[in-house]
Amino acid sequence: VRIDLNADLGEGFGVWRLGDDESLLPLITSANVACGFHAGDPVTMRRVCVGAARHGVAIGAQVSYRDLAGFGRRRMDMAADELAADVLYQIGALDACARSAGVRVRYVKPHGALYNTAADDPRQAAAVAAGVVAYGASLPLLGLPGSALATAAADAGVPFVAEAFVDRNYLPNGRLVDRSAGNAVLRDATAIAHRAVRIATEQQLSAVDGTRLGIAAESLCVHGDTPGAVAIAEQVRAALHEGGVTVAPFVS
Amino acid sequence: VRIDLNADLGEGFGVWRLGDDESLLPLITSANVACGFHAGDPVTMRRVCVGAARHGVAIGAQVSYRDLAGFGRRRMDMAADELAADVLYQIGALDACARSAGVRVRYVKPHGALYNTAADDPRQAAAVAAGVVAYGASLPLLGLPGSALATAAADAGVPFVAEAFVDRNYLPNGRLVDRSAGNAVLRDATAIAHRAVRIATEQQLSAVDGTRLGIAAESLCVHGDTPGAVAIAEQVRAALHEGGVTVAPFVS
Amino acid sequence: VRIDLNADLGEGFGVWRLGDDESLLPLITSANVACGFHAGDPVTMRRVCVGAARHGVAIGAQVSYRDLAGFGRRRMDMAADELAADVLYQIGALDACARSAGVRVRYVKPHGALYNTAADDPRQAAAVAAGVVAYGASLPLLGLPGSALATAAADAGVPFVAEAFVDRNYLPNGRLVDRSAGNAVLRDATAIAHRAVRIATEQQLSAVDGTRLGIAAESLCVHGDTPGAVAIAEQVRAALHEGGVTVAPFVS
Amino acid sequence: VRIDLNADLGEGFGVWRLGDDESLLPLITSANVACGFHAGDPVTMRRVCVGAARHGVAIGAQVSYRDLAGFGRRRMDMAADELAADVLYQIGALDACARSAGVRVRYVKPHGALYNTAADDPRQAAAVAAGVVAYGASLPLLGLPGSALATAAADAGVPFVAEAFVDRNYLPNGRLVDRSAGNAVLRDATAIAHRAVRIATEQQLSAVDGTRLGIAAESLCVHGDTPGAVAIAEQVRAALHEGGVTVAPFVS
Repeated sequence: VRIDLNADLGEGFGVWRLGDDESLLPLITSANVACGFHAGDPVTMRRVCVGAARHGVAIGAQVSYRDLAGFGRRRMDMAADELAADVLYQIGALDACARSAGVRVRYVKPHGALYNTAADDPRQAAAVAAGVVAYGASLPLLGLPGSALATAAADAGVPFVAEAFVDRNYLPNGRLVDRSAGNAVLRDATAIAHRAVRIATEQQLSAVDGTRLGIAAESLCVHGDTPGAVAIAEQVRAALHEGGVTVAPFVS
Repeated sequence: VRIDLNADLGEGFGVWRLGDDESLLPLITSANVACGFHAGDPVTMRRVCVGAARHGVAIGAQVSYRDLAGFGRRRMDMAADELAADVLYQIGALDACARSAGVRVRYVKPHGALYNTAADDPRQAAAVAAGVVAYGASLPLLGLPGSALATAAADAGVPFVAEAFVDRNYLPNGRLVDRSAGNAVLRDATAIAHRAVRIATEQQLSAVDGTRLGIAAESLCVHGDTPGAVAIAEQVRAALHEGGVTVAPFVS
Repeated sequence: VRIDLNADLGEGFGVWRLGDDESLLPLITSANVACGFHAGDPVTMRRVCVGAARHGVAIGAQVSYRDLAGFGRRRMDMAADELAADVLYQIGALDACARSAGVRVRYVKPHGALYNTAADDPRQAAAVAAGVVAYGASLPLLGLPGSALATAAADAGVPFVAEAFVDRNYLPNGRLVDRSAGNAVLRDATAIAHRAVRIATEQQLSAVDGTRLGIAAESLCVHGDTPGAVAIAEQVRAALHEGGVTVAPFVS
Repeated sequence: VRIDLNADLGEGFGVWRLGDDESLLPLITSANVACGFHAGDPVTMRRVCVGAARHGVAIGAQVSYRDLAGFGRRRMDMAADELAADVLYQIGALDACARSAGVRVRYVKPHGALYNTAADDPRQAAAVAAGVVAYGASLPLLGLPGSALATAAADAGVPFVAEAFVDRNYLPNGRLVDRSAGNAVLRDATAIAHRAVRIATEQQLSAVDGTRLGIAAESLCVHGDTPGAVAIAEQVRAALHEGGVTVAPFVS
């Protein structure tokens, strides 16, 4: 049994920092690195790539709407060609940073509002997939199982890797409880770690109403931008180890 | 006898256009494509790359300070690691667009204030060269012969290609007459075309005071953003043809 | 009988220009001046304010989503406090430029996607009105009659001024034909001028299907960013004059 | 004896925070509020203005080069009209936020590289002063005594208020020890507090070589972005109180 652990990294900009990249890098196996559109200046991008390379962490392009002021959390109506070109641009920019660290971008994951929109909107999902295809490096997309992005990836011939969120509550239909709800996020590290092991070993989790939910995820998303995030990630990693789960990048 | 003709392309942003890319593409052999920092949104970058690929025009990354409001024409004091990372980021972003057009970035040319600063300031010149080296694709730098950038390129093991400006007046010491001077720019198309042929065939031009100046340039820079620019480029191209000069990219 | 003529001005950014501000200024009575979020650098803003002051043209803040790359034409989901603060910021920035020209901002008009969203979405409409209220200068909002923005303005105690588009086709329900439709825009200058007079004198226009539509507009919007725009504005102005309509700002 | 305490506030952007505005507000009497060019989104600007109004803290516009990526710390060569317009724009934007909190911008202080450049370069200093004049509200400039900015302010008829830095080492000529030097910054809270009292009561401080330096400052700058900054500001404030110095805004 094996699973990948992914987290968002490099989400500072210039003098501003967010999250604890250095502490997360030894714990995760895939880093979703901000590419400059919602966060991530070039110096930060290079530094994160160097760190990821040193720890054997796979680098993914965390592509976003162009929205530094809103941290990419605001849905934007974009023409398909604009969105595809923005995705392409960001992949290339990050891949340059990865190259300078002796590695390459290995996958693509939409960020924030683009993640949510591409999960529901076939048009934006197709545009994201088109941007990935345009780069021509057969990079997989990482996202929500059963999403519009999964479908768009299949349609475009792009490999799709499903992820689960260890610290988010799920609805019985497999979608996430909205962040505006009070119970959107799990905060108990032990419960989170237990869920991680259960997803990895049984492909199951309990929805917010107790419903048993099947979930086939190759990667688990942990967060790095909240207080206690690193401690939670450590506990998840330890629990997976104890549960006999090998933690390794989903890209080989 | 052969020479390259380079021009700045893709210098619009969003709804805004600058220059006549479509008319210049059939006339030039190397396109310095804006990479988003002084101009050049991703859709424009892709469109220019597609056009360049169709016309067999080599694509260069026209890297700049991050300054959309000033079009990259304002000198900035930057730390070396910031400048190198910015150069790296821009090369990668444009290379992604080139890849989507079936080609690749073939060289790098600094834009505007960075061009001028890198010609005089060894520290910024070294940072530009370091950004090119970091990309790891053995891309040559295009710039002013005898400049700090030429030295920095040599020090960094980056090939350097010298260019001459067909429509700019030169001082006897080989530097350009400052743009603030009334006679900085040549406007007579016939004189410009004649100078182009003379540079290509005799490696010479007349400085502003009449001094005969030796200049070993592999590329001639023509402008595309001024009224009559296309007509001048056409006349330069025709004169080179009549003068028995083969116009071809400096990259093979 | 009197009517205002408004147009978008100052929609360049840095080196980039859009529209013909100098030619429009003598023809219009209210200038919707871009405030830096979709277009409009500070130098341009000052220049337009100086020109408007010289021509006795009232200055309005053309507030927008923060989206230079998309020219404010892409709908964004924004929190109400973010949108209100962005509106407030833009009004203040433009008012500073107006002050330096000896005048003041006299009204506010949303731009592009924000115009459309604020016409339909009560939440964003209320946020725009809240931004105007926060500035505390009793500035009226200029917009579509019957829109969510009109309602939000009334709710917030902000004066609302209705405008009509002389060169856009209307649906029988009083909304504009979508720009994606082939017949969204009128191009015949004589027909446009005739419509302008009819709106001003009869408060009527013919919808795209011929339906007679009542429209109580205090201002007519003319465009400045299309080929022939200035000629159309001239013809509109001349026709209004011949029709006995006084062209004057809606703000006194 | 009375003195003002000023500090930089509102230097976050979007999700990113910097410094501890809430803790500093009760300690200082003047807040240099970032205006969006080096930091400071409109929501943050409003929040800081509300806090400043509640604490009776005077609001100053901390104007900067347009450089979010570099936090305004990189010198830029700008045309005088561009710089003046940028200053004007930022003052107006912040004043709108202040108005919404029931107060107004009371002074202007350049930030970072612009602070340093305006201290030495008469051309940029004059442009900053011209931007302040253009706003037409008789706002004083806060800066380094004996600087080019002081001269430019005098030439332009702008009141100039001199400040001293309690935690920076001075050269015998009254200039600051460069930040690149190891001893640029004082870190001992007791020594800093002692210096603050001595400047306020004796108009003197000891330069880095022990030279006694006369300094006539109406305001003391304390920092808020370093670890321990708040504790230092508390100690400075307490020491001034004990030393019989009234801490009050320099604007009445």
